Amino acid sequence: MVANSRTLTRAASLRGGVGAPGSPNTPPTRFFTEKKIQHESLVTGAIESAFKEMDLQIERERTVYNISGGCTALVVVYMLGKLYVANAGDSRAIIIRNKEVIPMSSEFTPETERQRLQYLAFMQPHLLGNEFTHLEFPRRVQRKEVGKRMLYRDFNMTGWAYKSIEEDDLKFPLIYGEGKKARVMATIGVTRGLGDHDLKVHDSNIYIKPFLSSSPEVRVYNLLQYEHGPEDVLILATDGLWDVLLNEEVAEAVTNFLPNCDPDDPHRYTLAAQDLVMRARGVLKDRGWRISNDRLGSGDDISVYVIPLIHGNNLS
Amino acid sequence: MVANSRTLTRAASLRGGVGAPGSPNTPPTRFFTEKKIQHESLVTGAIESAFKEMDLQIERERTVYNISGGCTALVVVYMLGKLYVANAGDSRAIIIRNKEVIPMSSEFTPETERQRLQYLAFMQPHLLGNEFTHLEFPRRVQRKEVGKRMLYRDFNMTGWAYKSIEEDDLKFPLIYGEGKKARVMATIGVTRGLGDHDLKVHDSNIYIKPFLSSSPEVRVYNLLQYEHGPEDVLILATDGLWDVLLNEEVAEAVTNFLPNCDPDDPHRYTLAAQDLVMRARGVLKDRGWRISNDRLGSGDDISVYVIPLIHGNNLS
Repeated sequence: MVANSRTLTRAASLRGGVGAPGSPNTPPTRFFTEKKIQHESLVTGAIESAFKEMDLQIERERTVYNISGGCTALVVVYMLGKLYVANAGDSRAIIIRNKEVIPMSSEFTPETERQRLQYLAFMQPHLLGNEFTHLEFPRRVQRKEVGKRMLYRDFNMTGWAYKSIEEDDLKFPLIYGEGKKARVMATIGVTRGLGDHDLKVHDSNIYIKPFLSSSPEVRVYNLLQYEHGPEDVLILATDGLWDVLLNEEVAEAVTNFLPNCDPDDPHRYTLAAQDLVMRARGVLKDRGWRISNDRLGSGDDISVYVIPLIHGNNLS
Repeated sequence: MVANSRTLTRAASLRGGVGAPGSPNTPPTRFFTEKKIQHESLVTGAIESAFKEMDLQIERERTVYNISGGCTALVVVYMLGKLYVANAGDSRAIIIRNKEVIPMSSEFTPETERQRLQYLAFMQPHLLGNEFTHLEFPRRVQRKEVGKRMLYRDFNMTGWAYKSIEEDDLKFPLIYGEGKKARVMATIGVTRGLGDHDLKVHDSNIYIKPFLSSSPEVRVYNLLQYEHGPEDVLILATDGLWDVLLNEEVAEAVTNFLPNCDPDDPHRYTLAAQDLVMRARGVLKDRGWRISNDRLGSGDDISVYVIPLIHGNNLS
C-alpha cells in the first residue's frame, strides 16, 4: 500500500470533495452525487427515530405523571411484505418456521455491550464519578496488588493482556459480574431500553442513564420469500419467558400445541401464548412454583405474543 | 420485566459486588470470584497489545528517524495448533481449503467503521475543528436547504430518517463518498493501521490520527480441526492484490498453479506468490498495464505471502 492510495492528493481531494475544508474557494458545483437509500432503510430509520422520540417523551412526562423506572421495548412492524423486529432490552423475538427457530433479536447486556460501555466511559470519564474504572479485570483488585501485574481488558480489546496495577485500578469496575449477574456500575443488568432517567448508583449522584441506549437493533424478515404454514409463527416475549425456557422448548411447545386446536378457532394463537405463559410460570407445589423437570418457574412478569405468519403469504 | 429483576436491590447489590460504591463499609471478603480466561484470549490480547505498542513506538521514533506516513498491518501467529490472524487496515487474509475460500480478515474503511467514527466525533466534537459534522447525509447539503427536511444518519442508526436542516449541517461530513472513494474528513480511506501521527486535513490544523485505530481484529483458525492437503494455504496480501482480483480468482489461480509444481520443490509456495503478484500487475500493453479480461493492472504496491497449512496437520 502506498501513501497516495490511502490519502487523497490535493488534486484528488478537490475532485472527491468539492467544498471540503482546506480546498480553495472554488464555486460549488451544481450537481452532487446522491447516495441511494433503500426503502428498507427508511422503515428502519423511522423505527429507530420512534424509539429515540419515545424515550424523550418518557423523560418529559415522568415529572407530570410521577412515573419512574424503565422498561424493555420490543416492536414488530409489518410493511410491504416485510417484518421489522426492533429490540432494545432483554425481551426476545423468534420466528418458528417448519419447526426451526430463527432468532429475530439479540439481548443487550453489560457483557454483549462491554466495548460500547467501556468506550463511552473512556471518552467521558466524568460519567464514572471518580468511583468506577472503565477497565475490566478478571476479579476485584486488592490494594496490596498495586505495582503487580494483572490481566485486564480495555474497550478496544477482545483478548486479555497484562498491565501493572495502579491506584486507579482499585476503583470498582464499570462492568462487573458474569452472565445473569453482570451489572453496569453495580446497578443494572440490561443496557438498552426506555426510561430510567433518574436511576442512580445506590447512595450516590452517579447517573446510569448515559450508559443506557434507547437505540433498537432492527432485523428484517422478508415474508414473501417463504410460503408459511399455519404453525409458522413469530413469538415476542419478555425475559419472564426466556429466563426459564430455551428457544427450542418454546418452539416445541407451540409446534405441539397448535395442531391440537380447532383450525377454525380464531383464538388458537392466543391460546398458544397462554400455554407458553403457563409453562413458564409453572404449578404451585410444596417447594414453590415448578415447571417441567422440577425446575423453578419464572418469578418475573411474563408477556407473550404468538403471531401467525400465514397471512403474509404472497397470494398474487 | 419488573424493576427489581433489572436493577439490584440494596441487599443483592451488596452480595453481588462487595466494596461497590455506596455499599456500607463492610470488611472486604477474603475470596473473590475470578473470571476464567481462555488461552486463546491471552494470545489475542498479546497481539492486540503488540499493535498498540508498535503504534506508540512509531510515534516515538518518527522524529528520530524522520519518517512520516502510515501503513496497514496484517500479522499471523501460530501457537499451540492455532493460527491467529490479526488485521488493522486494508490488507486481507484468506485461507484456501479444498478450493474453498475462508475469509480470515475484514476491511476497515469509513463505511464499515461509520458508527465508531461518528460516535467518537459526537462525543469529542472538538476533534472536528468546527469544520466537519458527524452526521451523514445522502449528499452535500446546500445553504438554501436550511430549514427544509432531509434524510440523515447518526451514530446510533443503521437506517435513515428525516431531520430539519440546521446551519451546522452545512459543514463538510465526517464521512463522505462511497465505496473506494469513501473518506474520513476528506482525507483517508482506511480507518485502522499504524503511524500517520502527523496526518492533518489539507491546509488545516485538524488531526486525522484520533479517528484511526491501531486495534486489529484477531481471527482464530484451529489447524488441528482439519486435515490439510498440499494445496491448502493461507494467503496474506496487501490491497494491491485485492483491488484487482477477487478472492475466488486468487483461489483459482493458486489451486491451478500448485499442482503444476514439482512437489519436492521447497520454493513452490514462493512461486505461487510471485504468480499472484504478476496476475495483479499484468503486462505492459499499448494502453498501460493489463491483466486478464483486459482489465487494468494494480498501480499500487503488491505484497503476497502464500503459506502452506499442511505442516500444521496433527501427527499424533
